[in-house]
Amino acid sequence: MNYETVTIVRIYLTEGEGQVDNLIKRLHDWEKVRGVTVFRGIQGFGEDGVMHPAGMIDLSINLPVVIEFYDSPDKVESILEHLDDQIKPGHIVRWSAEVNV
Amino acid sequence: MNYETVTIVRIYLTEGEGQVDNLIKRLHDWEKVRGVTVFRGIQGFGEDGVMHPAGMIDLSINLPVVIEFYDSPDKVESILEHLDDQIKPGHIVRWSAEVNV
Amino acid sequence: MNYETVTIVRIYLTEGEGQVDNLIKRLHDWEKVRGVTVFRGIQGFGEDGVMHPAGMIDLSINLPVVIEFYDSPDKVESILEHLDDQIKPGHIVRWSAEVNV
Repeated sequence: MNYETVTIVRIYLTEGEGQVDNLIKRLHDWEKVRGVTVFRGIQGFGEDGVMHPAGMIDLSINLPVVIEFYDSPDKVESILEHLDDQIKPGHIVRWSAEVNV
Repeated sequence: MNYETVTIVRIYLTEGEGQVDNLIKRLHDWEKVRGVTVFRGIQGFGEDGVMHPAGMIDLSINLPVVIEFYDSPDKVESILEHLDDQIKPGHIVRWSAEVNV
Repeated sequence: MNYETVTIVRIYLTEGEGQVDNLIKRLHDWEKVRGVTVFRGIQGFGEDGVMHPAGMIDLSINLPVVIEFYDSPDKVESILEHLDDQIKPGHIVRWSAEVNV
């Protein structure tokens, strides 16, 4: 099995912000990223320090949502530049990894 | 607290593929990996570009599933060689991390 | 977009251990970590090798739970020293990443 370098990105949002659908659509339609997975947290807090308590998943609009994707380092770099004005500081993390090819 | 190096692996599947249970059983029974966690995404798309829409979690069979584990670099290397013929290219990512010991 | 180095931490617990709420409270009230996200796995096994089967999410108390956060390397180092006596070996992983600032 051979591997090549990718950059993994995780973007931390909350459902209530209404950004999630637009961002996924953008990554899908425009950026043509290889794949995206969206995870919903069951609890969390952000820079405002407000706890988003656990509870009935489908009743809460303030639960954390993480959008994860990976692609070649160059492509990720370009995607993140496009997202510059859309995602608040401190909410995008990225690191280097390897993917099977 | 002391730390040692591990390799973290994430394998991206969809529930409908029917691979998840077999893979977990294999990692548990054969590979004796230290621990495995399986996450279900709420939405996503893969290399086919087809969106797997959000909705009632238990009604969808096409939701993304991520199988995550970590172990010593040598052991992970050997496990990934065994999985070579089972996981499509682009669906396994791995990176180096540290674990408390 | 500028980036700075952070350490990402993932702590692997199970719901039945009853540690999750205390740990989040501690990270929030005492450690003042920037943000925390808690994820629930749908299946998994740990060092005891016992499978925690998939099923009705809200009926199981043995599902895996992951507490994830990131902050500056120094702050994470200090937080992890405080957690030294609370988290079992093999259950904290950390790695270096970059966050948008």
